[in-house]
Amino acid sequence: MGMVVMAGSSQSLTAFLDAGTSISSHSSCKIITGSFAVPIRRGESGPSLSFLYSSQFSSGVSSLGFGGFRRAKTRVAAAASVLFPFIIAAGAVEEMEKHYDDEEKVSEESHNFDFNAYMTAKTKAVNLALDKAVPLQHPEKIREAMRYSLLAGGKRVRPALCIAACELVGGDEKTAMPAACAMEMMHTMSLIHDDLPCMDNDNLRRGKPTNHKVYGEDTAVLAGDALISFSFEHIALATKGVAADRVLRVIAHLGKAIGSEGLVAGQIVDIASEGDSNVGLDTLEYVHIHKTAVLLESSVVSGAILGGANEDEIDRLRQYAHYIGLLFQVVDDILDVTKSSAELGKTAGKDLVTNKATYPKLLGLERSMEFAQNLTAKAKEQLTIFDKLKAAPLLGLADYIANRQN
Amino acid sequence: MGMVVMAGSSQSLTAFLDAGTSISSHSSCKIITGSFAVPIRRGESGPSLSFLYSSQFSSGVSSLGFGGFRRAKTRVAAAASVLFPFIIAAGAVEEMEKHYDDEEKVSEESHNFDFNAYMTAKTKAVNLALDKAVPLQHPEKIREAMRYSLLAGGKRVRPALCIAACELVGGDEKTAMPAACAMEMMHTMSLIHDDLPCMDNDNLRRGKPTNHKVYGEDTAVLAGDALISFSFEHIALATKGVAADRVLRVIAHLGKAIGSEGLVAGQIVDIASEGDSNVGLDTLEYVHIHKTAVLLESSVVSGAILGGANEDEIDRLRQYAHYIGLLFQVVDDILDVTKSSAELGKTAGKDLVTNKATYPKLLGLERSMEFAQNLTAKAKEQLTIFDKLKAAPLLGLADYIANRQN
Repeated sequence: MGMVVMAGSSQSLTAFLDAGTSISSHSSCKIITGSFAVPIRRGESGPSLSFLYSSQFSSGVSSLGFGGFRRAKTRVAAAASVLFPFIIAAGAVEEMEKHYDDEEKVSEESHNFDFNAYMTAKTKAVNLALDKAVPLQHPEKIREAMRYSLLAGGKRVRPALCIAACELVGGDEKTAMPAACAMEMMHTMSLIHDDLPCMDNDNLRRGKPTNHKVYGEDTAVLAGDALISFSFEHIALATKGVAADRVLRVIAHLGKAIGSEGLVAGQIVDIASEGDSNVGLDTLEYVHIHKTAVLLESSVVSGAILGGANEDEIDRLRQYAHYIGLLFQVVDDILDVTKSSAELGKTAGKDLVTNKATYPKLLGLERSMEFAQNLTAKAKEQLTIFDKLKAAPLLGLADYIANRQN
Repeated sequence: MGMVVMAGSSQSLTAFLDAGTSISSHSSCKIITGSFAVPIRRGESGPSLSFLYSSQFSSGVSSLGFGGFRRAKTRVAAAASVLFPFIIAAGAVEEMEKHYDDEEKVSEESHNFDFNAYMTAKTKAVNLALDKAVPLQHPEKIREAMRYSLLAGGKRVRPALCIAACELVGGDEKTAMPAACAMEMMHTMSLIHDDLPCMDNDNLRRGKPTNHKVYGEDTAVLAGDALISFSFEHIALATKGVAADRVLRVIAHLGKAIGSEGLVAGQIVDIASEGDSNVGLDTLEYVHIHKTAVLLESSVVSGAILGGANEDEIDRLRQYAHYIGLLFQVVDDILDVTKSSAELGKTAGKDLVTNKATYPKLLGLERSMEFAQNLTAKAKEQLTIFDKLKAAPLLGLADYIANRQN
């Protein structure tokens, strides 16, 4: 029986912790080659596993380095130890093999899915679409500022999620592209404004000087404003072949994700929490859900709506996105204490300097990693209603977020 | 034959100036009681008029003080001298009476329209709707900041334009209200961000400390962001009884009005022009059209679209809004040099201190006032295709903008 935690609730971390401080007390696991899914089953007497941080993980894998291991089933143990942030004892892996014969099919099917190639193709298409959506025109300065941050080579996780969700339910890339671009514009806007001197006062972003360092604070504020506004305009104008009421639903969902019930809410509570040594896990989770998860949810849900998903599919995908959204931030917290600025492309170790509440600070590094693994598993569990081959991009994206290095 | 200047073109000021430095060279005028329309006719040999600034105008009339003169036709001369920023010689008024018998009907019909009561009712309804749309909820600080500026007692010109345009073409207040509120939210956002230390660095707005002075710069940036985002969300979610494709069109129009082809473009060119003594009328008009006119256009066009207007009606209303948008800013420039901070509710005389390009600086006060009058007339000319009684609110709004005192 699967562990059920309602997405959107602030109880997911609490539930995880209540269930025991070690994942071994309530779990049985299965390594799946290709997508490396590790479902955590509650209430079953699974094998006892020990999770340890692998130094190989942080040094040996590029952020898109799935390719080399993808097709070699015999390399499962090596892949697990290198690619997953926790080493799973080889004996335990063997024991797990007995239990999940049906999931073996996922493994076989996933063999045929080239996640690296998928992400490369989507990133290229998204970059072209973004470049085209915001051409350089009068007045040049604001367009230059918008393009500077928008085309700075982000990972394009949100657009990829949007397109993958659309394709999963039968839609195509073209249909989702305007919304996919809008998600990246919103993300970029949040980075520009968060980096401002009156906010996080950061100098480095995506390996380059922050927007206000290049264009000035006034232009940076305006570039962010224009990106918010254009995101909605672009969805409304450029989305083709979808009923207007579905497009409106996407706009409403995105609006909620960005405003004072979403991203802005997360940022304001984050700012209020700074220097407060009493900040607990509830507040931390609130911040991360609102600063990160809601926009990932909006990306996936928008793609699903535009692709013609039914309500059950939308709800499953929303929960999937909720878990990977939280996962995204847990990993971010972990990277902040384990990586250099050069590796991250932004200022590293900042959370420690500012004494900010983070998962590693509140839970310790090991339990933070366990929590990340748990979230990955729960995210993937939401996708079991879909065709497993078609779900491969979203399964891969969950792993990508779990394993990203910057 | 009416003077034709394409709305949306940057040629309107140039056309005005080319036509002669004095309004008397190409004009004949008609004072209309009630709405005080003063159409300027080009190519007709009208009377020679002299326009002088009336000190009575700045001291004797409240911003909504039309009521006392409304129903007294015999008071036309007094009304013109007191309410209009230019005194029209009594003899000239008499001469004009001969020419426009058909427009006399407007005068009679306008008798029955109580503009003061109309604005009071719309302002009350809009304030209630805004209060309801942005309730105080967790996280309180961002909601307080949004509500502080949003409910600070603005003139609600944009919502009134939106509702009036909707009603003019057969729609009702309820249908237009979400968009009307969105226009005010966008306007408020632009004030909050424009007042930031990195922009205009202003301390006073609508008679109260600016948003960042009360809540801090970080919260002020976020409150603006949330207001942009919520504007689109609110239109998408709260508009009822209108086909989804029309709602989408409103959202696209508003997006363009706010972003790097609209309000943001105006602000960025405005900032770039600061301290540049070579700024000419073309740049000044670009700034004013983009900083002000486009949002007024969006307000009117949105109301028209939601009310079910046809394309010709939408285009006429767009042109009307273009003229009153430019008028709004010309009057703003005039007020900056003729009013005190206390009277304006914001820092007065700032344009002079910062040596900013303004109409009074580039044209002189008298010609700026003539230009304002010309714009008022052209705005009203666009409304001649509509039933005159139904157009009374928009005719009144043109006068209101021309005659406003803060």
